Amino acid sequence: MTVLLSHRMLLAGWARRATPTAAQWIHHNPEKMTLLEMLGTTNLRKSTPKDYRILREIFNSFERYSGVGNDIQLTLPERAANELIMCEKKREYEKGIMDPSKFAPGHHIFQVLTKVKKSPLFQILRRMPKGAALKAHDTSMCSSRVVIEITYRDNLWVCTTQNGCRVEEFRFAKDKPKDVSFENGEWQPMEKLRELRGEENLRKYLQMRFSMYPLASFTTNAHAWRHMMGIFGLLDGLLQYAPVWGDYYYNALKEFYADGVQYLEVRSVLPQLYSLDGSRMPKRETVQIYKDTLERFKKEHPGFIDSKLIYAPIRHVQPELVGEYIKECTELNKEFPSFVVGFDLVGQEDVGHPLSNFAAELLKLPDHIHFYFHAGQTNWYGSHVDQNLLDAIVLGTKRIGHGYTITKHPVLMRLAKYLNIALEVCPVSNQVLQLGSDYRSHPAATLIAENVPMVIASGSPGFWRAAPLSHDFYMAFLGIAPMNADLKFLKRTAKNSIKYSSLKDEAKAEAMEKWKKQWDKWVENIVRQRKKDSETEKK
Amino acid sequence: MTVLLSHRMLLAGWARRATPTAAQWIHHNPEKMTLLEMLGTTNLRKSTPKDYRILREIFNSFERYSGVGNDIQLTLPERAANELIMCEKKREYEKGIMDPSKFAPGHHIFQVLTKVKKSPLFQILRRMPKGAALKAHDTSMCSSRVVIEITYRDNLWVCTTQNGCRVEEFRFAKDKPKDVSFENGEWQPMEKLRELRGEENLRKYLQMRFSMYPLASFTTNAHAWRHMMGIFGLLDGLLQYAPVWGDYYYNALKEFYADGVQYLEVRSVLPQLYSLDGSRMPKRETVQIYKDTLERFKKEHPGFIDSKLIYAPIRHVQPELVGEYIKECTELNKEFPSFVVGFDLVGQEDVGHPLSNFAAELLKLPDHIHFYFHAGQTNWYGSHVDQNLLDAIVLGTKRIGHGYTITKHPVLMRLAKYLNIALEVCPVSNQVLQLGSDYRSHPAATLIAENVPMVIASGSPGFWRAAPLSHDFYMAFLGIAPMNADLKFLKRTAKNSIKYSSLKDEAKAEAMEKWKKQWDKWVENIVRQRKKDSETEKK
Repeated sequence: MTVLLSHRMLLAGWARRATPTAAQWIHHNPEKMTLLEMLGTTNLRKSTPKDYRILREIFNSFERYSGVGNDIQLTLPERAANELIMCEKKREYEKGIMDPSKFAPGHHIFQVLTKVKKSPLFQILRRMPKGAALKAHDTSMCSSRVVIEITYRDNLWVCTTQNGCRVEEFRFAKDKPKDVSFENGEWQPMEKLRELRGEENLRKYLQMRFSMYPLASFTTNAHAWRHMMGIFGLLDGLLQYAPVWGDYYYNALKEFYADGVQYLEVRSVLPQLYSLDGSRMPKRETVQIYKDTLERFKKEHPGFIDSKLIYAPIRHVQPELVGEYIKECTELNKEFPSFVVGFDLVGQEDVGHPLSNFAAELLKLPDHIHFYFHAGQTNWYGSHVDQNLLDAIVLGTKRIGHGYTITKHPVLMRLAKYLNIALEVCPVSNQVLQLGSDYRSHPAATLIAENVPMVIASGSPGFWRAAPLSHDFYMAFLGIAPMNADLKFLKRTAKNSIKYSSLKDEAKAEAMEKWKKQWDKWVENIVRQRKKDSETEKK
Repeated sequence: MTVLLSHRMLLAGWARRATPTAAQWIHHNPEKMTLLEMLGTTNLRKSTPKDYRILREIFNSFERYSGVGNDIQLTLPERAANELIMCEKKREYEKGIMDPSKFAPGHHIFQVLTKVKKSPLFQILRRMPKGAALKAHDTSMCSSRVVIEITYRDNLWVCTTQNGCRVEEFRFAKDKPKDVSFENGEWQPMEKLRELRGEENLRKYLQMRFSMYPLASFTTNAHAWRHMMGIFGLLDGLLQYAPVWGDYYYNALKEFYADGVQYLEVRSVLPQLYSLDGSRMPKRETVQIYKDTLERFKKEHPGFIDSKLIYAPIRHVQPELVGEYIKECTELNKEFPSFVVGFDLVGQEDVGHPLSNFAAELLKLPDHIHFYFHAGQTNWYGSHVDQNLLDAIVLGTKRIGHGYTITKHPVLMRLAKYLNIALEVCPVSNQVLQLGSDYRSHPAATLIAENVPMVIASGSPGFWRAAPLSHDFYMAFLGIAPMNADLKFLKRTAKNSIKYSSLKDEAKAEAMEKWKKQWDKWVENIVRQRKKDSETEKK
């Protein structure tokens, strides 16, 4: 008790000076006195109201200094911008506390998409330089607008069933395809179908088919996955046509860049693209098209940093085939050493093989090619899918795609922190694929509080008609992070995306500079706009 | 690297002997080598498949030995019972992985209540001696069957609107009440209404009005709360009638005891009960009725341990009134020292005052009367409600009601563990009050993994037509805990409920014995039933 009393007096002394300083001291000198030692073995019920207030303030500050962004010092202009951002955030937050039905992150994105787009906070975040988007899938990155434009190209055939009512497959070809994979399926030129169903009608229909809409509520996440795999399947014939592949990627780069993303890592299954005569090209051609398109894009957009490729074939295969993939990845990396930089396996984990099945094959990948494994994208706890998290870490992954279940595995969470493995948190994807319904229950809140390395990513934004990355930032900032998470949180998250990218050290430094330039401009614009607004008000 | 290599060799040596032993050694000697030191600073990508398997097994075991129940050693009969229990658990779990729509904890309880009752696993859990139920509210503990029976008593009047279609209020009185609180409200004898609407019809209607059914989906948790407060209000006139109050409590004890609960802590707002002439009695009478009823019940049920009272008035008041409550609690404890043992504040936190507002008053409570605060029953992160968690802890609470948001506050989670504060986890309540939809996303999974003190509790089971405690155990065991959580988890959870009760040391030891007797009988019954079943199969 005497020990505690002296602690108490010490704390009281600190509190008089400035509690945040005290908390910072504790934070930076954890070896000197732990949070728990501070409490000692006393009976808290003997506290005076003053004791209580001091302890409370100290723990509060301690918590404030433990989360993501605590290491960031804002510049003067950033502080001014922060005030405006927090004013908009608090407006939405407090409206939500008054009437939770008005809080966007409490709803399914499909129900609030338009509303969110009008939010002043979203408008600010949309323009924010976000650094890198580290998780995007090859054929779900672009908006449906881009995909629908592709359906206007020459030589496109469409296979329909139900007398033209249901579109089953697309194919580019000189002549009408002869093979039909669907019962009662019929091929016809796309122009003909458009004429038949009416342009506007068909556009609306395709917009629906190219996204998860309108199904905000699936019975289970398995059901949502099946639906999503159906979209991927429908797009295959459209996007795997060699002349289209590069254009789709170009448009993705364009859309991400317009959304404040300067660097993009794409996970691709690397399909063998086809030509008008139906012949398939080798995989290296797919990579070559990526590479050429990227060079063109970079030349035309000097503010853009770069893009890299993670070879990510489907996981629902036998170990021998994974062995083949590993060989392919090694070859491709030899040919495109600065572009094909990583390996992953994709597809619904719940129904796939666990990573451990493939361990012997995976360990054959040369260690300069990194693993970026999807893992723990599930809500089962203790199933083999859950084990993927452990396997990803023990296999030496550099990042983890989703890791949704990691908060149920504190040991692994500590390992991720220690080994500096970043989690790619994809809020909107998790909701659409039915892992959670309310953003306020997203487990990443714990990652933020524990300061576990994390980045905000999207995955397949085109399928949910969301912005490439802005909706994920909005939901994370307003719905997942604590109310007091501010510009420090946003800055740390943006910087993390470059820090945890596969860029090499020197390139990383350059990337950080390119990002910083845009960041400072963005901050300046907010401050300038604010001045303008308050001057207008005065008049 | 050399350091790591020697670690590696050490680990390999362990693994050859028996990995669980190695993990146990690490677990019990954390000061000798930490989880993280084991990894060293090596490149995991240089692992051989054998290295990988060893590390994987060690971390796996480490995790297994960290969760709730890891300290329990099962006896031989318990091991036999465990096999049967895990067989039933796995059956449900694996069916769920095959088709998630068949997994009960993935649904709203209202949709699977009947299905769950038929589950063999539920049947086992229903009979399990659960120890104590540490969270139950005074007028929502009993099934609606009990409440409906009360409506058959003499002298009951009912106030209806919409021409008898909507029941608004009940009152026991000799003559027709004169005051009407509802527009167009009319009082009539209950018999008359029953005759008018038909007995069966009215029974069904009341069953609906006395529960949260059929609304499995409210727009927000504020909406769910308003609905629930409406039920409490409707029940007031029925249950606050002095002769009814004791009977309701008696029935609650009976129903909880039949559900495997031997000890009950009730949170009561302690209303002033009324007599047939409308006069109100002092609060001490309410407690006296509780006390007398309890004595009667204990005499008639020697296997029952005890019941205690936590005075828990509504939190939506000014600090001065809380000061009054504290005085009342002190007085009542003086008169009923072994029965009125604690203090709490109830009602929706989101719309109430934060605990900190009342701190000065609360700290006046003599410290032998414990705090059992509700706190963090919210999904807002960083709001004042969230702060209640911190305040509850710093004010010296013995347990925390819900603490749903604690995993977003690792600092507080560590404090709860250090100070041995148990969280009262109420899975079904959290779902019905819209904090989460799928049990697999319940934050208590993290508490289980981190071995933070916790008990499983219910709250207002009558309002969701659930068993007093069995549905919460079922959802926690199957839906929240990891697949491999077994009888050790159940035993630790049952024992915790007595450990974290307000019983004094000696009484606690006696309680543990009384529970143990029933526990051993239950285990024996499972094993006997199993033998019988396998003999029948052989024939």
